Formats: sequence, structure tokens, C-alpha cells
Amino acid sequence: DSEEFFKGVGKIEYKPNAGPTDVLCFKHYNAKEVINGRTMEDWLRFSVVYWHTFRGVGLDPFGAPTINRPWDDGSESVENAKRRLRVAFEFFSKLGVKYWTFHDRDISPEGATLEETNRNLDEITDLAKELMAQTGVKLLWNTCNLFSHPRYMNGAATNPDAHVVAFAAAQVKKGLEVGKKLGAENFVFWGGREGYMSLLNTDVLAELTHAANFFKMAVDYKKKIGFQGQLLIEPKPKEPTRHQYDYDAMTVIGFLKHFGLADDFKINVEPNHTMLAGHPYEHDIVLASKFGMLGSVDSNTGSPDLGWDTDQFPMDVRDTTLVMKAVIEQGGLAPGGLNFDAKVRRESTNLLDMFIAHIGAMDSFARGLRCAAKLVSEGAMAKMVEDRYRSFTAGIGAKIAKGTATLEECEVWKIQMNN
Amino acid sequence: DSEEFFKGVGKIEYKPNAGPTDVLCFKHYNAKEVINGRTMEDWLRFSVVYWHTFRGVGLDPFGAPTINRPWDDGSESVENAKRRLRVAFEFFSKLGVKYWTFHDRDISPEGATLEETNRNLDEITDLAKELMAQTGVKLLWNTCNLFSHPRYMNGAATNPDAHVVAFAAAQVKKGLEVGKKLGAENFVFWGGREGYMSLLNTDVLAELTHAANFFKMAVDYKKKIGFQGQLLIEPKPKEPTRHQYDYDAMTVIGFLKHFGLADDFKINVEPNHTMLAGHPYEHDIVLASKFGMLGSVDSNTGSPDLGWDTDQFPMDVRDTTLVMKAVIEQGGLAPGGLNFDAKVRRESTNLLDMFIAHIGAMDSFARGLRCAAKLVSEGAMAKMVEDRYRSFTAGIGAKIAKGTATLEECEVWKIQMNN
Amino acid sequence: DSEEFFKGVGKIEYKPNAGPTDVLCFKHYNAKEVINGRTMEDWLRFSVVYWHTFRGVGLDPFGAPTINRPWDDGSESVENAKRRLRVAFEFFSKLGVKYWTFHDRDISPEGATLEETNRNLDEITDLAKELMAQTGVKLLWNTCNLFSHPRYMNGAATNPDAHVVAFAAAQVKKGLEVGKKLGAENFVFWGGREGYMSLLNTDVLAELTHAANFFKMAVDYKKKIGFQGQLLIEPKPKEPTRHQYDYDAMTVIGFLKHFGLADDFKINVEPNHTMLAGHPYEHDIVLASKFGMLGSVDSNTGSPDLGWDTDQFPMDVRDTTLVMKAVIEQGGLAPGGLNFDAKVRRESTNLLDMFIAHIGAMDSFARGLRCAAKLVSEGAMAKMVEDRYRSFTAGIGAKIAKGTATLEECEVWKIQMNN
Amino acid sequence: DSEEFFKGVGKIEYKPNAGPTDVLCFKHYNAKEVINGRTMEDWLRFSVVYWHTFRGVGLDPFGAPTINRPWDDGSESVENAKRRLRVAFEFFSKLGVKYWTFHDRDISPEGATLEETNRNLDEITDLAKELMAQTGVKLLWNTCNLFSHPRYMNGAATNPDAHVVAFAAAQVKKGLEVGKKLGAENFVFWGGREGYMSLLNTDVLAELTHAANFFKMAVDYKKKIGFQGQLLIEPKPKEPTRHQYDYDAMTVIGFLKHFGLADDFKINVEPNHTMLAGHPYEHDIVLASKFGMLGSVDSNTGSPDLGWDTDQFPMDVRDTTLVMKAVIEQGGLAPGGLNFDAKVRRESTNLLDMFIAHIGAMDSFARGLRCAAKLVSEGAMAKMVEDRYRSFTAGIGAKIAKGTATLEECEVWKIQMNN
Repeated sequence: DSEEFFKGVGKIEYKPNAGPTDVLCFKHYNAKEVINGRTMEDWLRFSVVYWHTFRGVGLDPFGAPTINRPWDDGSESVENAKRRLRVAFEFFSKLGVKYWTFHDRDISPEGATLEETNRNLDEITDLAKELMAQTGVKLLWNTCNLFSHPRYMNGAATNPDAHVVAFAAAQVKKGLEVGKKLGAENFVFWGGREGYMSLLNTDVLAELTHAANFFKMAVDYKKKIGFQGQLLIEPKPKEPTRHQYDYDAMTVIGFLKHFGLADDFKINVEPNHTMLAGHPYEHDIVLASKFGMLGSVDSNTGSPDLGWDTDQFPMDVRDTTLVMKAVIEQGGLAPGGLNFDAKVRRESTNLLDMFIAHIGAMDSFARGLRCAAKLVSEGAMAKMVEDRYRSFTAGIGAKIAKGTATLEECEVWKIQMNN
Repeated sequence: DSEEFFKGVGKIEYKPNAGPTDVLCFKHYNAKEVINGRTMEDWLRFSVVYWHTFRGVGLDPFGAPTINRPWDDGSESVENAKRRLRVAFEFFSKLGVKYWTFHDRDISPEGATLEETNRNLDEITDLAKELMAQTGVKLLWNTCNLFSHPRYMNGAATNPDAHVVAFAAAQVKKGLEVGKKLGAENFVFWGGREGYMSLLNTDVLAELTHAANFFKMAVDYKKKIGFQGQLLIEPKPKEPTRHQYDYDAMTVIGFLKHFGLADDFKINVEPNHTMLAGHPYEHDIVLASKFGMLGSVDSNTGSPDLGWDTDQFPMDVRDTTLVMKAVIEQGGLAPGGLNFDAKVRRESTNLLDMFIAHIGAMDSFARGLRCAAKLVSEGAMAKMVEDRYRSFTAGIGAKIAKGTATLEECEVWKIQMNN
Repeated sequence: DSEEFFKGVGKIEYKPNAGPTDVLCFKHYNAKEVINGRTMEDWLRFSVVYWHTFRGVGLDPFGAPTINRPWDDGSESVENAKRRLRVAFEFFSKLGVKYWTFHDRDISPEGATLEETNRNLDEITDLAKELMAQTGVKLLWNTCNLFSHPRYMNGAATNPDAHVVAFAAAQVKKGLEVGKKLGAENFVFWGGREGYMSLLNTDVLAELTHAANFFKMAVDYKKKIGFQGQLLIEPKPKEPTRHQYDYDAMTVIGFLKHFGLADDFKINVEPNHTMLAGHPYEHDIVLASKFGMLGSVDSNTGSPDLGWDTDQFPMDVRDTTLVMKAVIEQGGLAPGGLNFDAKVRRESTNLLDMFIAHIGAMDSFARGLRCAAKLVSEGAMAKMVEDRYRSFTAGIGAKIAKGTATLEECEVWKIQMNN
Repeated sequence: DSEEFFKGVGKIEYKPNAGPTDVLCFKHYNAKEVINGRTMEDWLRFSVVYWHTFRGVGLDPFGAPTINRPWDDGSESVENAKRRLRVAFEFFSKLGVKYWTFHDRDISPEGATLEETNRNLDEITDLAKELMAQTGVKLLWNTCNLFSHPRYMNGAATNPDAHVVAFAAAQVKKGLEVGKKLGAENFVFWGGREGYMSLLNTDVLAELTHAANFFKMAVDYKKKIGFQGQLLIEPKPKEPTRHQYDYDAMTVIGFLKHFGLADDFKINVEPNHTMLAGHPYEHDIVLASKFGMLGSVDSNTGSPDLGWDTDQFPMDVRDTTLVMKAVIEQGGLAPGGLNFDAKVRRESTNLLDMFIAHIGAMDSFARGLRCAAKLVSEGAMAKMVEDRYRSFTAGIGAKIAKGTATLEECEVWKIQMNN
């Protein structure tokens, strides 16, 4: 395992004065630089995803794979899985990120039986644990893939077949155990097929009740085994499903309230999904944060002119500034982080693009952090907002804010003012 | 008040065999015909809106008014308001609808002070009461216009100025009193400007808390005065506001749960708004119904290729069938109804178009009712859905449905099945 | 080849009185019934696609294949390809459609060299020719798949690498030869990757010029070999590419005009694509028809709430009526047809769903034809349109319509009228 | 006319080091600074619109006017119109823009007859000419309002009533004369109601032919009177009309080609409209520029999450950079400019916001210019694009680029390469 896969690429360094063709360096991200009292590394808590970065092949609905990595023999063997994992940790280390994330089925092949599948996962996560110890890279979160296998074509927790729900439950049980083993700081549920294709064949209330019961089982088991990670739900409005139940942050918060689960979950916001739900980019970040429910961020982006998820690397400083403003205002994201759930384009087949893409995104967030920190420390914007709501600090305003006013009092106040 | 305004138009009759140019008759709607045990009139509970139908002038963001009605002198006088009201009741009667709806400011002019405004409203609603008694037309719901006046440019219940909130509260107090006076079966809140234009100047949590407190005041006062109408919230995702807090049915349900208001409100769904929120036409109808929260329907439609609200008359039988299927499945809409929150196009300046548009919509709903009743009574579709979820009636499925299963049990079951 | 693959399914018959659970029959489509002077079969010219129906496996961007057909061994062998073809012709015959369509790579495996690929295609099309003769099923159109292979990831005719353009040209040469061999009535170009992912790396004018030159080569070769089929371009605004040059009908017409190609091409409209371009469902059908450019129709549909192509079977009678109204008004679609570029849902794994889906769509178009024929023969709508433009038949109107008026004449006319 | 309307606001100065609350100064725009060989002023050619800035009252489809200007008595008198004009030129001068734009009906009241209307316009434009001479502010373009008056509810050049077309023609005649009188550098056509609400009542081919004939009349008259301004068409896909014929840049180019008008018109691109047509922000700017058709830019923006036009001031440096990159690459925009077709929000009732909004936008474009100039002068991006298409400079690539290749040659080349 001393083999080097990215020959010629060293540790990515901070070179603020590098020119436009010098792309294997950071021009803005300076990990140990202190901004508003913390290092950039602490504020940003970057994480690389395993699925896109090490399992993505450039497939799309109209085309065959385009991406072949030299280390990957294309097999579903444990051997191949281990080699990929070593590549990944070399990548994390050279890039200088402190966290990674994965789905159970991305890192480890599925076997003929659940036991065999779980044994594979044990073997692979043994290696992962070792590599994490060697490199100091930690697990931001793990998750279970409950959407790719044909058995999940009609959903996992909301499948109309109870036996598929049970299968998914068994898979999550193992996922929580793996999370505990690797010290995951969070555990994510993304319900890509928890929704409907047509309301005509769907009992939405039954399905949502099953989903709630599924989450309760996860909470119970997490507590039972002493897994410390924060549970997170990731909203998405649609795709692959026509309608996904976890439409957006407020829908998820409503669901959690309705079923008495709000204390046990937070939200993993992906702004690309927020846009697909018809909101401004920053909407779910801010709403979740204000309700105390912002747990972590999938820091990718999309094209507003497209109606599907493109998982692009975030490169817009306006966007990263708005995310970091919310993060600073809530005092940081930990135990969450900024996870790059992003992929190089299908046409981007050059191996170095893996680095270039992540560097560009990290620099964009570094710039966003610098901008947001300036906004917050200047204080002009916060002062304007405070002034705007000042009338709620006294008189009828204070009563309204406290919930002690009545319609009659408001009318009396109004008539006195008016006349 | 014996003047006839629509000369040459008699009571609209049911003529199932009329030809394509015979447009002043119903070809499908037969009010007293019994379908699935009730008259069509009972199932459909049609209602005409006052604002579009008697106050609409064909203004749009790029053009001046196009619609001049012969009875309207264009003034804001009480006299003019009374004449319009007489026209409206002639229209309701000739059309054969049993319900109407209005905003406070549509039927009655605003005065220099709140007292004067309220006196005008008293005078006008005295006449309305009289006309309702004469014609037998009832009030499906009334509502307060809390969005047109410049004072509400930043919202009503969520305005950053507490004094505007208080003003709105005084207006709602009167609105509830008017509802009681006229025997309104419901009272609607549509928060067109309850939302934000920019998150940068908005404290969303404060605003939502104020909205909840505002609703609580309304509930308290309703109970105090013994008003029996059902309170309804009408979701809309955006327009005029960039983001409206009452985005869609599930967002409203979540809000009501969060603030402990779910027992006191139901939802008035407008499918045109549902589409603007990115959902299928029937989504909010079905979701609200399944959660026991479907109170009433604004039965208009829009163009899916447009990103704003066009309030078109519903003419698509597929859509009306889906609405009526949900209505039949929940046993009817009462005390809600099918309210035509719809307007003739700006180019549709012919007086008769008022009738033709409503007749087309009523016929479309009549056809939808006939189709839905057939679907429901045939039972084939319901049977398929029942079969689809059958696995939840026994074994591990029943435990999952009841919420008594554990992840461990699921794993044990899975391993037993698998091997 | 006497094997029967769909055992238990006979020829689909017309049974207008069948009940809701009797799904293997037509309730509206009666092939030989005469409507407005032609048989339904003649008006509708239904065609089944090979790709979705015989090569679709239920893959989506988030999930593995779900559909396994009993006759398909999953191999890329010529043997397997032949067996599929036999299945297809049994399906066409039992369904009672008179046309089929295919891409070169769908029916025949790609070889190691272009020669081998072409030899495979020769062998398979020999069989196709035989099966067509046996069954009487004709080829509505064939096309080349210039988007799935990795070589086409940056486009075919608009690829920035000239050698890929040349490869695509060689493929189209063979495609035209195959079209001639099988008597194709049309030949289609769908430029799924002819567009850009980013304007920053794209020379759009060079690419469009290359595309025009590519089309000219095809026109020249078609004439040279005496292929009689109509050349068609199929617009789509986006997906998989961020922006596709053939955005919609008017964009394609403008492109053809600009490059002097308008006499040699017509348009194959897919209304699902029209919706993705932001237009009403019927827009491109009507616009292309009015400009004399409507060549054929891909008669599938999508969900207006989704931002990607779902290729659903058309089931909405309003939509099919609007298509058939345009078809009747232009006197028929021949040599084009109504091609079902549609697929069963990924969850629809039952073999019989292949039949049920096509039957539903054919019945929907049969109903659309009946409705449109009634609209046209009643004539009330056409008369209204004629009346609406009557002022262009005389005076200043006639001069404006002919293009002989001047601004000065208009002003003189206006002043005379006004005063 | 020596009255000062914006007391306390002096000439806006460049203060690059001003703090966040110092908003009445430029922090980036330095008019006389030379960038890539020209002054910023020359590159940017900023223009203020009369309609939003001096006639906007904050009306929206759900609310009454909110904006009252102290100098405006609300009347339609010539006196009031003159006072507004003096205010406008004070504003232009203090802001330091060199151009303005207007619609005929914005600056001057409509009279009882066309002659009276034209006399009013003569009187007002006499004053405008005088103020232009005094201040040195020039007319970027004028245009005719052919959409607000009820007579235009069904379009102007495409109205189904020929007499409305003639009226519009008379209005454009005067508009061209006014353009000549004031030395307008361009003349714009925005066809807000040239389109359809429903295809069922519309003869699209007749309407487009009328539009082409209308444009030909304008070209002829322009030449006849010796008006030197460039004629421009401004695309918009929809709103207020359901479908607008001038959907986007490529649709307009196709229309102009089809009707032989391409030499006489260029395009005025508003990226906000481009987004509503489903394209990336920069799409129409780049496409029009590459086809030699980019005449001028309406430099406002919108929210991608909204489906209607909001005419916001451009504040996103990414966007302004992309616009300025295209402008630099085509060697400047003259005789076009960057026209702020933008309005303060309805809630933004403070008089100073007029300045603050324009300053923010001008600074954003100044930053965009600096960024774009750097991109262009570094040359790294241009070099990558050049390399990408290098294969078209020789061999089969050069023949394809020139249009001299054949399918047979491509096949021969391919077989030689392959084997």
C-alpha cells in the first residue's frame, strides 16, 4: 500500500499570487489562517464524497461511461474496492481535506446474501479505519444507499412492499454500526425514491407513517448501541422520483414535528436541491439554520436553467458568501461540514480535473468565508435588520411578539393612533 | 333594485344536446341530478368570487384596464358599491350558483379612518344580507385584503413594523364579525405578502412567530364571538412576494403543527398555486385531504408553461376528475366548496364572457364529477391500491405499520427470508 | 423463427364496451373505421420505437436496471439481436401498428471496426427486411445514434474534434444506405449532444457552421443514392446537454433558413421537448405546421412539473386532440407518423405493460382524432378565427397583409378615422 | 428650471476606499480610467431609463402604488411632464451617465387625437433637446409604447384588427421622427403583446407576416427621413403574453432571415428575458454577438427562482463579467450601450434608493469590466478554446469547416484511421 497513484501531484499548497494557468494550488484557501477567531479549516470543515469522486464513471441517461481510472479494474471485487480506498486516502491527503463521506454500497461490493454483504463491508471498513488513523482524515458522515438496487425502485422506508422496508431497516442497522465503528460525526438519510410517481397508486399517509416508524427504529438503535453521530435528513424535491416527500427544509421540519421526531434529526441541506424546489439558492440554509435545524451542507451547485440535479462544484462567490454568512451566524457547522457532493463533468475525463475541481470549490468557499466574515464583522447589515424590527420591542409590538395581544387590543390601539 | 343588468340572459338551463355555438346553457351540469347518492349541486358547491368577477378591470403589469362594465361608474362611492352588489346577485342567480366569496375591500370602499371604513362595510353587508335572503345565495367564505394597500407592502401579520401587524389584526377582527353576521361557512387567510423579497433584510423566525401569534388572536376572537366558520389558510409559493411562507400544503401543515395551531385551521387549496410550487396539479388536494386538512378548493387553473398566477377558469376534465375523486373519497367538501377564483382574460371584454367562462368551468367540473364517480364506483383502482399495500397487514409488515418493529427484528426477518 | 414470445396475447381487438379491468383491447381505436374521409389507421400512422421498447432496461441516473425480458440474454451478440428483432415484429403485429423506427446501434451490435459494425448492421437489416415483408410493417424512419458512445460526449456534427465529426459522417452515410434498403419513409437527426455545457469553452458559430455542413453532406449523399425518405430534425432544448442548438421548432427553422437548408428538411416534433423549451404542449406542432415544416410527431408526453424528459405514453385527450386538429388541418402527416418515443416506467416491470401502455396511448389518440374531427367538421372554431382577421381583406388591412402599405399611409388613414 | 430636486445629493464621485455605509459614491466605477485601451465610460456606455425611474409607481398585480415623488403631482398634464423631465436630467447629471432612453408615452401625455398626442410629444421633446444640449446627456434609444393602451391588448403589429396595426404604424412613424430629432443612436422594438394567449384563436403565420411587413415599413421610412439610428428588436419569451414571437435571440434571427430583414436590425438583449426563455444568463448575449447581431444590452437581472420579469438592478459580478467579456470580444457595444431597464423594488420608497440602486449596478459593471479585461488580456482562456478546435485547421477537418467534404470522404478517412 505504499504505491502512489497521483504521481507528479504533491500536497496542494497555498500560493496566493499564482497565475491563471497554475491550477494545482490554492489561491484563496489557507487552512491555518485565522478568520474571525478560527482557522479557515475549522470554519469550512471540507469533506470529499466517495461516490462521485471514486465511483463516478460519467454515465448519463443518454450515454455510456466516459471515465476510466487507471487503478480501477472495473470489477466488483473486494480487492478492487480496497485499491480504490487507498487511492481515495492519497487524494484526501494531497488535497488537504480533513473529512470524507460514503454510502455503504460505494465502498464495498454487495454479496449474494446480507451476511456476505456485511462481511465485505466489515473487511473494507477495517481498511478504512486503518487509513483514517494513518492520515488523520475523519468520517463526516456515512449513509446507506437505499435507492440504486432494483428492490428499492418503489422506495425503501416508503416501499409499498413491507419486506423491502424490512430489508432497508436491516441495511440501516449495519450502517449505524459502521458509523459507530468509524467514529462518524453524522449519519445521513437521503430518500431519493421515498415519494411517488403517481398519486393514483399511492397511499401517501401510510407511506409517511412507515417512514416515521422507520426513523424511530433508527433513533432507538442508535441510542442502544451508543452511536454518537447526529442523524440528518437531506431534502430533495424530485428526481429520480416525481415527487419526493422530503421536498425542502420546511417540509422536513413539518414532517419531523408531526411525527414527534424533531429532537433527533437535523437537516443536511444541498442548495442545488433547494433551487430545484423553486427557492433561492440560500433559502433552505437560512430557514433550517433559523429553526435550529441546519446540521450540515452538501456544498455543490447546479444551473438554474436546468431542471435536474447536476452536482456541480460550487464556484460562485456570491453563493458561498451566503452559505458562510449563515454558518458564521450560527457559530459554525460542527459536527456538520461542507461536503462536496459534486462530480467532474462527464466530458472532464482528465485525472487532474479531480484535483482542479476540488481546488476551485475550496477556493470559492475560502473567498465566501472571507466575504462573509467581513460582512459580519462590519455589522452594518445586522444593524439594519435590527432597526427594521425595532417596533416589536415595546408597546403593542412587544405584546404581539410575546403572543399576549388580542384582536380587540389591536383595534383599540389602531383607533387611538388613527384619530 | 328591480333593475335588470344582464338583459337578454335568463336563468342558465341544462341542455345536454345543445350545439357548439349555443354557449349560454349547461351541457353537463344538471344541478339536481343525483350522482353517487347526492345531487351534483351538493357535491360541487360552486361559488363565484366577487373580486375578479365584479372588480376586475383587466389591468396587468404592462397595460391599462380594458374592462368597463356598464353599471360601474368607476367611483369609490358606497352607491356604486351597492349597485355592483345587486349586479352580482343577479349574476349568481342567473348562473345558478349557491355560494359567493369576497374580500372586505372588494365589496366596500375604504374610508379616511378605520371607523368610517367599518361603517361603509356595515352598510354594504346589510345590503348583502338582504340580497342573500332574497336569492338564497350563501357566503362560502369571506376574507380580508391584507396585501393591496401600500401599508401592507412588507406583509401584514409578518410585517417588520408592529403597527402594521396591529392594523391588520383590527381588520381581521372586523372580518370575523362580518363572517358571523353573514353566516360565512369559512374564513380564509391568503398571505400574499407574508414572506420575503430578500433573506438579507428578513428575520424569518421572528416573522413566522408573529404570524402564529396573529393566527392565535384570530382563533381566540372567533371563539369569543361564536363565529362558526372554519378557518382556512390558502398556500401559494410566491407572487407577489419572492417567497411566501405558506408555500404549499405540507409547509402550512408543518407550520400549524410547529405552532400548535393544527386543530383550528384547514387548508384552502388552489391547484394553480400548487403548480407554481413545482408539484403536480392534484398534489396539494390529495396531500391535504389525506392529512384531514382539505377544507376548500379554489377551483381555477393556470398554464404550466407560465411562471405566474393566471387564475384561469378550469376547463380540463382530467384535472377536474382528479379533484372530484379526492372530494368523493373524503366524503364531500362541506363546509368548503369549489370557489371560482378565476377571471376572464384581459382581452375578453364582452359582458357575456362572464357567463360563458363560468358555464364552461361548471360543465368541466360536472364532467369531472361524473368521471370520478364512475372511477370510485367501479372500484378497480381502489382495489389495485389496496393490493399494493397488502403486505403491511401481517407479520413484520404489520409491526412496521404499527411502529412496534425494531431494526434488529427486521434484520432477523431478512436473514431468515434470504437464506 | 416460428417461436411465439408473447404467449397468451393474441391480436389486440377493438372492444368498445369492455370494462375497466379488461386492458388488452382497444376501446376507442378502430383501425378501419372511417373518420372525415380516411381510416383511423391512415390518419394516425402509429409507429413503435425499438430503443425504449426492446432495449430499455429501466436504468436511471440513480438506479440499476430493473427490466429483464425473458428472450434477452443480455449479450451484445448478433444472435441476441436477431431474437429481439423477431420479438419486436411479433409485438408490432399483435398490437396492429403499421410502422416501426430504430437507431442503428439499437438493432445491431457495434463491432471492433467500422467495417465489422456495418457488416453486423447488414446482417440484422437483412432479417428486418424479411420480417417487414412477412408482416407488412413498414419503416417510418431510422436514425443514427450519435450521442451514446463516449466518442460523442462533446457532440457529433458539432464536436470540437473534427475527427469525431468525420466518424459521425461515416455513420450517417451507412444510415442513409440502410434507410434506402428498408424503404424508410423518413430519416431523423436528433442532436442530443449538439450544443454546449459552457459557453466559456465553446465557439458556437464554428459549431453551427460545422452542423450545417454536416447536413449538406447528408442531403448530397441522399440525392446521390436516390434515397427517397424525408430528412427530419428533432428539436430539444436541453438534456443531456445544457443547451442544445435545436432548441425548438422556430430555432431549427431559423437555422435552416440561415444556412440555406430549409428546402431539404422538415421537423420531427416531440411535444415533451416543446414543454421543456417553455412552450405550451401544442406550440411546436402548430408553428411547424403553419410554416409547412411539420414532418412527423414523436407522440409521447411528460410531466409539466418535471424538468427532464420522461418519455411517457400520451394519455391526455386534450393533448391528443390538439395534435390531431393540426394534423387534420394540414391534410395528414404522411410521410410522417405518430411515433411512440415512449417507455414504460422503470417500476413497470410486467411484460404485459408493454401492450397496455401502447394500447392506452393508441386509444388516447383515437379519442383525440374523434374530437378533432368533430371540431373541424363543425367549423365553428374556424369561423371565429376567420372573422377575427377579416379586417385584413380590404382597405389599409389588405395593403398591410400584402406588404404594400407605408407608415405615411397608415398615419393618414389613422388621422382620417380618428377625426 | 434652476430648481434643484435632489437637494443634498451632489455629483456622485469615485471613492474606492469608502466604507459599507457610505453609499452615495462609486467604489469601483471610475469613468475616465483607461482599461484595455479605452475609458470605462466608453466601454460601459451606461444609460438610465425614463419609464421605471421617473414613471414607476410601485404598482404590482396585487397592490396599489407605493411610490410618490415630491415633484410629481400625479396629473397627465404637459406641465407635470416637463417638471419630471427636468428632474430626470438632474438625476442623469448627478449620477454621471451619458445616455438615457424613453418610450413615447412615458415622457409625454396622450391627447384626445393623434395630432394632439403628437403636439404634446413635440413640445416635450423640444425641452428634452434643450436639456440634452445643456447637460451633454445623449439619447441611446427611444421606442414606442405599443402595449399599454387597451387598443393594443391583442398586439400592435400582430393585432388581428388591421386598424390597430395601422394605428401602431402611425405611432412608429412619429417615433422615428422623434429619434431623428433627438439624435437617437438606436430605435428599439419590444413586442410585449406580439404573440398569442391561445393558439386556438390565432393565425400565427398571418401575424408574423404582418409583423415583417410592419418592420419593412419602418425600415423604409427610416431611410426616407435619413434617421441614422440602428433598429433593434428586444426578445422576450412571454409576459404579459403567454407566448411572445420574439422568444429569444435565435428566434429573432430566424425571423429576420426568413423575412429578409436581417441586414436592417440588430438585437437588444435583456438577460433577464434570456433566463425566462430557459437559457443561461449570458446565452443571448453570446449568441447574438457571435452572429454579429448584438446591438445593445438592457443590463438588468432577475431571480432564477421566479417565473416573471422583475427588472432588478444587476449586482452579480459573475454576470457582469460575462457580459463585458462578450462586449470586449466584439470590440465594444457602440452605438448600443448598457441600459438600466431596472426599477427599485416596490418597497424601496426612499428617494435616495434611486441613486443607490444605480450606483450599485454601475459598480457591479465596473467590476465586471475589470474582471473581463483581465481574462481577455491574460489570454489563457482564449488559448484553450483555440486549441480545442485546432483539428479543423487541416485535413478532413479543414474540408468539413469549409463545407467541401462528403460523407464518402469521411468514411474513407475513418476506415483508414481505424484500421
